[in-house]
Amino acid sequence: MRLLRALAHGAGWVVVGAGALLVVGLLLRFAWARWLYEPIEPVRAAEKQAYLASLPRADPATAPRFVVILFDDLGWGDLSVQGNRLIRTPRLDALAAEGVRMTQFYSTSPVCTPSRAALLTGRYPVRSHTHQHVFFAEELLAATARKMLGATNELPRDEILLPEALAAAGYATGLVGKWHLGGIPGHLPNDFGFDEYYGVLWSNDMQPLHIYRNRAIETRDETEFSLLGFHDEDGTRQPRGIDQRLLTRRFTEEAVAFLERHRDQPFLLYLAPTAPHVPLYADPEHAGQSAGGRYGDVIEDLDRSVGAVLDTLERLGLTDRTLVVATSDNGGNYEGSTGGLRGRKQETYEGGMRVPMFVRWPGHVPAGVVSDAMGMQIDLFPTLLGLAGLPLPADRTIDGADLLETWRSGARSAHEHLFYFPTLGAAPVAVRDARFKYRKETGQEGRSKPHLSDLALDAEAHNLASLHPAKAAELAAALDAMTRSVEENPRGWR
Amino acid sequence: MRLLRALAHGAGWVVVGAGALLVVGLLLRFAWARWLYEPIEPVRAAEKQAYLASLPRADPATAPRFVVILFDDLGWGDLSVQGNRLIRTPRLDALAAEGVRMTQFYSTSPVCTPSRAALLTGRYPVRSHTHQHVFFAEELLAATARKMLGATNELPRDEILLPEALAAAGYATGLVGKWHLGGIPGHLPNDFGFDEYYGVLWSNDMQPLHIYRNRAIETRDETEFSLLGFHDEDGTRQPRGIDQRLLTRRFTEEAVAFLERHRDQPFLLYLAPTAPHVPLYADPEHAGQSAGGRYGDVIEDLDRSVGAVLDTLERLGLTDRTLVVATSDNGGNYEGSTGGLRGRKQETYEGGMRVPMFVRWPGHVPAGVVSDAMGMQIDLFPTLLGLAGLPLPADRTIDGADLLETWRSGARSAHEHLFYFPTLGAAPVAVRDARFKYRKETGQEGRSKPHLSDLALDAEAHNLASLHPAKAAELAAALDAMTRSVEENPRGWR
Repeated sequence: MRLLRALAHGAGWVVVGAGALLVVGLLLRFAWARWLYEPIEPVRAAEKQAYLASLPRADPATAPRFVVILFDDLGWGDLSVQGNRLIRTPRLDALAAEGVRMTQFYSTSPVCTPSRAALLTGRYPVRSHTHQHVFFAEELLAATARKMLGATNELPRDEILLPEALAAAGYATGLVGKWHLGGIPGHLPNDFGFDEYYGVLWSNDMQPLHIYRNRAIETRDETEFSLLGFHDEDGTRQPRGIDQRLLTRRFTEEAVAFLERHRDQPFLLYLAPTAPHVPLYADPEHAGQSAGGRYGDVIEDLDRSVGAVLDTLERLGLTDRTLVVATSDNGGNYEGSTGGLRGRKQETYEGGMRVPMFVRWPGHVPAGVVSDAMGMQIDLFPTLLGLAGLPLPADRTIDGADLLETWRSGARSAHEHLFYFPTLGAAPVAVRDARFKYRKETGQEGRSKPHLSDLALDAEAHNLASLHPAKAAELAAALDAMTRSVEENPRGWR
Repeated sequence: MRLLRALAHGAGWVVVGAGALLVVGLLLRFAWARWLYEPIEPVRAAEKQAYLASLPRADPATAPRFVVILFDDLGWGDLSVQGNRLIRTPRLDALAAEGVRMTQFYSTSPVCTPSRAALLTGRYPVRSHTHQHVFFAEELLAATARKMLGATNELPRDEILLPEALAAAGYATGLVGKWHLGGIPGHLPNDFGFDEYYGVLWSNDMQPLHIYRNRAIETRDETEFSLLGFHDEDGTRQPRGIDQRLLTRRFTEEAVAFLERHRDQPFLLYLAPTAPHVPLYADPEHAGQSAGGRYGDVIEDLDRSVGAVLDTLERLGLTDRTLVVATSDNGGNYEGSTGGLRGRKQETYEGGMRVPMFVRWPGHVPAGVVSDAMGMQIDLFPTLLGLAGLPLPADRTIDGADLLETWRSGARSAHEHLFYFPTLGAAPVAVRDARFKYRKETGQEGRSKPHLSDLALDAEAHNLASLHPAKAAELAAALDAMTRSVEENPRGWR
């Protein structure tokens, strides 16, 4: 009894002490994350500036114009040209028919932030330290939690972005729509090469959803705020200040104005609508018209938006001078159609990462081509820089490959392998070649096994490793090599 | 300081006291669950006996014979007749061609135990108190945990099973394969109307996987045992005693022997292979032959098994007198093909519950018919009893409907609605009619919303509730009514 009493006495002190220590530690870490946090140190800032300073000027008369349209959460099967039976997308269907439609094309991540970072840098997410899921608005507890856990919440300053290189070469560069690569000074769109920015910093479900014109808030989201809150079209917190129903329309108007302003010089227009990411808001002018319900309305709004951009190019006589690309940042989410592919957003199955991809450039890229050559959004950086006559940076790995010959002549992809990086994690979890896909794990309920799929024959169901052991071993080796490589040199410095 | 000291002193006693109470409580509950547990009390035992005693004898000359084949985790797209491009299933394809293939047919649960209970009782899982996921072998900690949490681990004795009614009418009744409805005396296959039983009590991943002949173990699973252990084809615990590679072959031999023994009387053969549930073991005689890998080998073994049963019927002159049904207990799992449907085993999306269904009965059911009339495995109980000339029990709800007219004449399903019950939970979470499916929630990451799908047009992607508000309301009302009904009278006693 005396011993028990002594133990209990001691246990009390341990409990109180440990509890107090925990509280103090968490408070300190919270304070650091919320008020003292600093982005990770740029290590190649000087090399980046030297590279940008070295770039030649593009010839305004001959340099191609670029329009890159990136939808948010558009699924593989969400467009009529992709097989959807409910949603009508005549303008995107026509865009696909007037150029190359790629059927084996991928976002570089199954979620937003790493996917967008990869598109703009030409590098896998781990290179830009964006491999830990998505960034959150600074005001949200989730942003503080990220930092408390040691994750970044903005793109490192030493990454070289497509608009920075093009701007250095004399392009007018504009982002209209969603950024999602950081929300603090030094990491805003105008800090990364966009001369002009009109849009939102975060996903359209994240509070606060202020609309920025360059570095200043132009339209303030005055919706009742909650530290954990999300915008929700059926929620009790009515939106105030911004009207999400009109976001696509406003982005379209800004995109059209950008094209008109820069009709006489080379430009990069990066049009990144916030739709069809949830919450779903349809433009009241056409709401209720799609056979695909509210989701269909939202997609058909996007189709009209693309139509307005293409009409503007035509009206300005720029159609033949402009490469137009339209794709999605990851696979479909809740209401997105996977078109029969396995998996959805957040997953490295095909449904989470294979995305529509249309490329139109009359006279340069053939019309009416459906290509099954592999490609990934990291390819846009080297391809567009190549078209603008600009060299790639030499101090870092660019994971993307130049797709021009693939588009022009139907050549095979320059990629031997494409790697699938997960939502959270530095190492790839799967790899594919022209025909087979190899997963290290199936990722289901502890019965995880390596899995080889023949993507031409089967939606990642049956494991064919026993039939193709050499192929499984080859792809496993490629996956291991890439894993070792990103472990040894995550940011790919040379 | 004195106060803190006093509090810490008190906290110590609270910690020790609460901890001790927790340990004692858990130990007592564990002891109860492991050694003193009793199945739930049968409340309609007398009515059941009276019903069985009242049944007329079937005329041996004219009574139809029944073969019900139930695969384990066979996916919607796993057979060539269902669109698979890698796996060849000529015998099942022929079976489908010689009768009615139903394309809108469902298991009654997205997991095994409740699905099998529903098939044999004609009632939704909650009726038989099997709505809490699957039963576990008594030796496993999971079984004890189930009981500690208040879940049952065997079918209640007062349920009336198809084989009980048929046996009472003079049918020979045999189960060859998997039971999964209980493992203690009073709840074994021979306690529920099967005169003859050869098979395993649990899924083929569960230890111990003894093979029973009636109530006795005939082949003992001597694999090294682990309280949490699963059989695993690539595991370190090598199987001993039983050879899973030969399970399908042995079940086939037993099925053929059953048919031969009972060639001159009405019979019910319930053939329930353990495949293609994981772990995957192919018969060495054909292993490596399927273009679908090991999974394909396993399915093609099943196809040969069905072929052997059909050949036996033909050899015995029983083809025209025998109704043959082949289906699956839920949708595909890890390597199963969903054929493009959304979801998998454990989910109430179509891929988790829509299953292949072939019905052959030459001269009674037309050949070459593909029917999109709704059906569910609960329908087999009333349909087969009707064919045997037996009345339904009057003291309880039978949720199934007689499908004979649907098969014979292509009439619409007798069901106005089918309900989707989840793996765990008494209430249905979705409902469908001939065309639309309504989910109460999408069940994804807290953005849950009601969802209306047009199953004829879309694989449960876009929510069409805004286009068909009256239909959404009608189905929501049907779902609410069924929910209230099972809350008020879960077991459906009349």
